[in-house]
Amino acid sequence: MTQRFLKVAAIQHACTHDRDKNLANTIQGIRSAAKQGAKLVVLQELHTSLYFCQTQNPNLFDLAEPIPGPTTDQLSTIADELNVVITASIFERRAAGLYHNTAVVLDTTKGIVGLYRKMHIPDDPGFHEKYYFTPGDPGFRPINTTIGRLGVQVCWDQWFPESARLMTLAGAELLVYPTAIGWDPADTHEEQQRQLDAWLTIQRAHAIANGIPVISCNRSGFEADSSGNTQGIQFWGNSFIAGSQGEIIKTAPADQCAVLIAKINLSRTEQVRRIWPYLRDRRIDAYNGLSSRYLD
Amino acid sequence: MTQRFLKVAAIQHACTHDRDKNLANTIQGIRSAAKQGAKLVVLQELHTSLYFCQTQNPNLFDLAEPIPGPTTDQLSTIADELNVVITASIFERRAAGLYHNTAVVLDTTKGIVGLYRKMHIPDDPGFHEKYYFTPGDPGFRPINTTIGRLGVQVCWDQWFPESARLMTLAGAELLVYPTAIGWDPADTHEEQQRQLDAWLTIQRAHAIANGIPVISCNRSGFEADSSGNTQGIQFWGNSFIAGSQGEIIKTAPADQCAVLIAKINLSRTEQVRRIWPYLRDRRIDAYNGLSSRYLD
Repeated sequence: MTQRFLKVAAIQHACTHDRDKNLANTIQGIRSAAKQGAKLVVLQELHTSLYFCQTQNPNLFDLAEPIPGPTTDQLSTIADELNVVITASIFERRAAGLYHNTAVVLDTTKGIVGLYRKMHIPDDPGFHEKYYFTPGDPGFRPINTTIGRLGVQVCWDQWFPESARLMTLAGAELLVYPTAIGWDPADTHEEQQRQLDAWLTIQRAHAIANGIPVISCNRSGFEADSSGNTQGIQFWGNSFIAGSQGEIIKTAPADQCAVLIAKINLSRTEQVRRIWPYLRDRRIDAYNGLSSRYLD
Repeated sequence: MTQRFLKVAAIQHACTHDRDKNLANTIQGIRSAAKQGAKLVVLQELHTSLYFCQTQNPNLFDLAEPIPGPTTDQLSTIADELNVVITASIFERRAAGLYHNTAVVLDTTKGIVGLYRKMHIPDDPGFHEKYYFTPGDPGFRPINTTIGRLGVQVCWDQWFPESARLMTLAGAELLVYPTAIGWDPADTHEEQQRQLDAWLTIQRAHAIANGIPVISCNRSGFEADSSGNTQGIQFWGNSFIAGSQGEIIKTAPADQCAVLIAKINLSRTEQVRRIWPYLRDRRIDAYNGLSSRYLD
């Protein structure tokens, strides 16, 4: 069997109030990754801004931009120049009063080749996403690129085995999760470690259940809650790249910027699915209940 | 919030050709677990026999028994005597030519309170289960017991997030996996470790995705392949008990018998689901594809 390798990168960094500075940081990371041979570069969720969802403030919708728009224009130019595929994360203004948390794929010379609008929207103290983001409507469709078929999702989606499976059934060759997740400083160290471990474990499990690699890109750094309602968020970094048996290939630190690079073997999917052929044995005659809210 | 604790046990051991000796081993483990206060005792898959599916042999259907039958009778008596709930694993003869891989729940004084017939059936070199076991038909229904609502599945099921989710939606308070999984001695050490790690990871992920504890009970010991087609199976033990954030509470060794006991906190489900409320945010409007074989 011909081996098919792909060098991938995740760009992890802290953000500030300054959009241009954030984007310059991101682009510096993309350049470094490309220089090291990466062909796919995954950016963290909402990489041009602070994680603004800690509070509800109508003025913050000013941060949104159309697609195509300034950020996708700028990143398209970079993708073209460096001959890479970039998954960017945009606070999308689709229409007045209609905003999404959107991942956009920019493919070498081709510009925008597809987008994914975050389907599962969280809403918790410090994460007021249902206020800002309309739930996505294109569903779970992988995006074709010159380097493969990408199952791009966003952050909270990473906790749902359903969407990882749907991307797989639709032909995704790898799963990509831009994300912004961190610790509540009010939690104990033990609770913080359980949460980080759960986050790593469930995403690795998507790789295992589906026999495809996972790239997860998180931000680092502390961001205060301007409302003072919470103690802010210590984003936990730990971006990682896992192979198609869920094995961790590379992990970034918790508290530093990182240009995380790994070579993944896309041919392993064929091998691991021959050993453990879950797609053959799914009981599709018995899964109807998955479309129910609860079976009481 | 009132805390609700439950002491649970998994009985891991090697098996021989001698049914009575295997069952005596199991019962010794149950007695030990009960003495230490366990209220739920989980037995490994097909605990009365060798893992006979390494070869296809029509005579081996002689190992099957009805439910109720000799093994459930014997274990019912023990459950009654020790005032415990036992999940047993039976090669079930349901009718001539109709056999199942079945988990049975025996509840204190009540005898059999429910059964689960393995739904996902593997079939691979050394694991000829599609030959022996008809796919289960009762679907993924938890079983009510005096100590809680058990989401009992069997072995290969443990790789499918779909069934863990369906058990959860139907009200399961914990997931139980009797299993028989091991290493192919022909594999490299690295491959063996990746497989074990994948097995632990995906089951822990079911706990995480659903906010409920997991008990997984595997056999230990080497069993030869009488057909000589493979190098046999080194069952990898590693039975474990994980809490509702997927955190490992206790693990058994790879190569020894073990009466694994842990106290789990069932009230944690309420707490972790308030922090990470996946059931609130599932996109049931977009999950229809899960009932498809493939979305091409």
